[in-house]
This record gives sequence, structure tokens and C-alpha cells, in this order.
Amino acid sequence: METRADDFYPTRLERPVPAFDRRDPVIHSSGNARTEGPLSETELARYERDGFLAFNNFLDADTVKRFRDDLRTYENDDSILRSEGTITEPGKQEIRSVFGIHELSDRFDRLTRDGRILDMVHQLLGSEAYIHQSRINFKPGFHGKGFDWHSDFETWHAEDGMPRMRAVSFSIALTDNTPFNGPLMLIPGSHKTFVPCVGRTPEDNYQSSLKKQELGVPNHRDLQQMADQYGIQAPTGPAGSLIIFECNTLHASNANMSPWPRSNLFFVYNSVENQLQQPFCGNKPRPEFLGNRTNSRALKPLATPDLRRTG
Amino acid sequence: METRADDFYPTRLERPVPAFDRRDPVIHSSGNARTEGPLSETELARYERDGFLAFNNFLDADTVKRFRDDLRTYENDDSILRSEGTITEPGKQEIRSVFGIHELSDRFDRLTRDGRILDMVHQLLGSEAYIHQSRINFKPGFHGKGFDWHSDFETWHAEDGMPRMRAVSFSIALTDNTPFNGPLMLIPGSHKTFVPCVGRTPEDNYQSSLKKQELGVPNHRDLQQMADQYGIQAPTGPAGSLIIFECNTLHASNANMSPWPRSNLFFVYNSVENQLQQPFCGNKPRPEFLGNRTNSRALKPLATPDLRRTG
Repeated sequence: METRADDFYPTRLERPVPAFDRRDPVIHSSGNARTEGPLSETELARYERDGFLAFNNFLDADTVKRFRDDLRTYENDDSILRSEGTITEPGKQEIRSVFGIHELSDRFDRLTRDGRILDMVHQLLGSEAYIHQSRINFKPGFHGKGFDWHSDFETWHAEDGMPRMRAVSFSIALTDNTPFNGPLMLIPGSHKTFVPCVGRTPEDNYQSSLKKQELGVPNHRDLQQMADQYGIQAPTGPAGSLIIFECNTLHASNANMSPWPRSNLFFVYNSVENQLQQPFCGNKPRPEFLGNRTNSRALKPLATPDLRRTG
Repeated sequence: METRADDFYPTRLERPVPAFDRRDPVIHSSGNARTEGPLSETELARYERDGFLAFNNFLDADTVKRFRDDLRTYENDDSILRSEGTITEPGKQEIRSVFGIHELSDRFDRLTRDGRILDMVHQLLGSEAYIHQSRINFKPGFHGKGFDWHSDFETWHAEDGMPRMRAVSFSIALTDNTPFNGPLMLIPGSHKTFVPCVGRTPEDNYQSSLKKQELGVPNHRDLQQMADQYGIQAPTGPAGSLIIFECNTLHASNANMSPWPRSNLFFVYNSVENQLQQPFCGNKPRPEFLGNRTNSRALKPLATPDLRRTG
């Protein structure tokens, strides 16, 4: 496959090519738009350096409980169980992930329009934004598998046609994150480098990659170099804590060997100025529940996003 | 299979039976033998409560380096590579574990006779002791697999015929233990309970169990109950740190997803008053490199165990 002239981040190549510096800013706002948002200059500098920020107690315990109760409710909701974006345990009605959850759950939809969150998103992306992907995850105790090191942007670029690095992920813990239940591990600073990955992408790769990612995994030499240089961090904290991470920050998670389940909300904002194109790997686009192409208008903040409301 | 009359800890049963309190003390010494050893009363109380103790900087950096160099040397030593107790990477000469290392390495042998260590062992076991099993481990970065929750005593009792809980393991890190390279996880307090495991033991079970333990894994209900009650701990520390853990303390380790290898020395002391019998699972004994039956005389401390000496 030939690399497209408009491809700033060629990947899924037949032969290894060296990693290179990202071609986009980390923080896209400037002037007043940068200084007048909710994130302090210290937090912005840390995000620019590390590619992520962690906040404890972002959601209160009552709201956390409502989201967890929702997850249990979904297991008895046929329309959600039948949804293409719902991944259940083999042979059971136990839900592992519900993708596209912001279109199914009014509470989740309201969360994505929370003014506190959108103001941070605008500050980081320097524009209005929409939801590229959302999901609620449930990782059971003892069984939850890990996920190998990867950059989300690398997949979104290759398989969804996201042109530039101008997206940011929010992960809100619905259970305590401990060192033992497979917490998110990040390589701070890795977002500054793009590591092209080797290997042609098969059609419908997502059907296997949601279980175990084999393509889009950076080579060990580059991973080792970045981990040696920057270290690895795994923010822990009580249920309700928030991790914001840049779309190109390398991350992974280990298996959950503890008895304690791990649930979280995960949603990705993409800049309205960074609309999806044809996938750069040359395949047809992935389903909408993985890379939204339909509802890409700017999200407007809710005046009072009451997340405690029923439903 | 019928349970033997002298079997204090029946396990590998056809049907689940409830967990029960251990029938042996945790610390076997008393009087002067208890109070005059190197471990303080605070440390002894912690070991009695938690089933383990962790010490940073037990071995100095120079000694650690010599043991690591030894491991590299073994990869070019045919007699070690051919040893039954040497586990290498499939298709490579990269060593994963060398069992029975105290009989192959003079330096390791001297370490097991170190007066500081033997005095602690005597204090904990209330008698003289010998080496039941020893090994040096090398877990490479990215690839190192985890090990499921288990009690070592459960296996040593069932498969080696160790009659009572009167053994203690020493694990000395040759690399830094971080939260990310698959460190030892322990359930403090779990050593007080014996969890009988379900399932008949096939002959030569060790050939597969060294790779992935499937028998001798406690049921999830008991594991959850103990983890909820006691929590999980994973001592971290620089190379040279020591973890002492009681033979029945439940432990596990996760995969090493970091680029950084994890090596350690591991050796088990058994009381000379707790000699191996026929395996309680009814099978023939495992090989000597897993459960030593030949050299079970009391170890005598070396006057000056110089671990820096060549060889």
C-alpha cells in the first residue's frame, strides 16, 4: 500500500521505520483560551510534559454508585444486550464492555456534556469537540485480562482515519484503582513520539483486536528506550477518580489477579477540526460504535448536568 | 484415594471441603531461642501476623552483581545447561530458572549457610534446617508470565510429602522490584488458614505445573474472603532486598509487562524435624531438584561467608 500524501503519521508498514517526533502540539489552545480554562498553568505544563493528568474524587460516591447500578441494569435490558457494541462474557449475560454508551445512557450523555469536563477539553484541544468513542467497562476479579502497550491514536489514525493528534481520553474509575486490579499504566512523555507499527491491517481487525491487540503494538526497542527514559506510572485512587490522557500516550494494563473487579467509564473527545477521513490503513472504516462518524457536531455544555437523576 | 491417618492437611480432594485453621505454630521457637535471635520481637510479631517480612538492602550491590554475572556465565556452561533443573527459553540458551542451584554454585551454597540467615531460620523454625528447594530465576522484560495464587506448602505437602508447616522461603531480588515487573504479591495473614484444593494430582504434574499451576490453586471464594479481610501487599525495593515468607502464605505474581527483567534468588529452609515422607497425594516423589530428600542434614553456618569470592 502506498502512503497517502496527506498522511502525517504513516503506520502499519511492511518494514520498520524509525520513530519520529509528533507533528502536532500537545495543547492546542493559546492566549486567553489557554489561560482562562479550568486547568491551571501547572496542570497544563504537566499534561504537556507527561501526556496525562490524574485527579482523585472527580465524581462523588453517589454518582459513582448510580453508574455502577446502571451497568447491572443493562444486563437485564435486551436492547442493550443486543446492541452491536455490547461485549459479554462467553455464554453469560455478564457485560464486559458497552461501546457507544453515550448514545444509550442519558446519564452518560449528560456526563460527556458536563461543563467542567468540556471546558477542560476545549482548553486542551483548542476548539470545540465531539465524542469519538465511549464505553463502560467491567473487568471481573481473577479473570480480567491485560492489554499490551499501545497508542490509541495509532489505531484511530490507521483504522478510523483520524488525521491529526488532537483528541483526548477521559477515564473515570467506578471502583478503586489499586496496584493489584490491573490499573492503567502509562509511559509519561511517550506522547511526544510517534512509533510507526509494522504489519498490514486485515479487514475487520477490530473483531480480534478488542480482545487482544496484535497489530499497532510498538516494537520493544522503542518501548524499552522510552520506559528507560521516562519510567512507568500507574495512578491509583478511590472510585470516582479521573485520568485524562493524550491520544498518543503509550499505555497498557496488566491482568486483574485480585478478587476485586475493576469498572470504569471511558470516553474520547476529538476536535471538530479533526474530523475522520478514510482510514489511513486503506481498509473500510470500523463500525460507528468504535469510531463515530455520524454525530460529530460540537457538544454544548449542559447548564446543570444532574448525574444523580434517574435514567 | 483414602486420606492417610498421619495427614494433617488433606488436599487434592475429589470434593471441596472447607478451609481450616493451621495446625502448627507460625514461629516454632520459644524462650531464649526466640528472644535471642536476630529478628526483633516486633519483626517476629509481624511475621506471626502477616506471614512475611521484607528487608531492603539485604545484599550489597557488589554481591548482587556477582550473582547476576553468575547467571550469564551459566548460559555458557554445558553442565548447567544440561542439568535436569535448568529451564531455558524454548529454542534458546536463555535461562529462565536453575533449580538446585545451591548444589551447583559455590556462591549460592555459601549464601544458604550465611550465619545472619541461618540464625533467622533457627529462630523461625525452632530447630536446625536444610535446603528443601533452591533456584535462581530470570524473568525477562515484556515476556515474563505471572503465577496464580497458591500456598507453597500445599504443593510441598501433596507432591513432596512435607508433613507439617515448618518451612520458610527466602527470596532475594537481583533486580529492582517495581510495581510493574511482576513483583511477588502476598495476602498477609493467609498463612493462618489451610485451603484444601480440589482435584487429583496426575503423575509428573510438575512438568506442567512449573509453567502454569492448575492444581493446588485455592478456590475463588476463600481467596476473595481472605483478600477482603487482609488485603494484598507487594513489597517493592531495590536490588538486594529480601522477602522472607512462611510456607503457607498465599502468594502470586502478575506478568512482567515492563521492559525491565526481574531476577531473584529463591531458597526454602525446612526444619530437620520435618523430613519429607511419601507424597500425601499418593504419587511417587518429585525429582530431587524440586524436593530435596538426599542432603537433609542440618546446615552449619560459615564463619565468614564471603559472597564476593570468585566462583
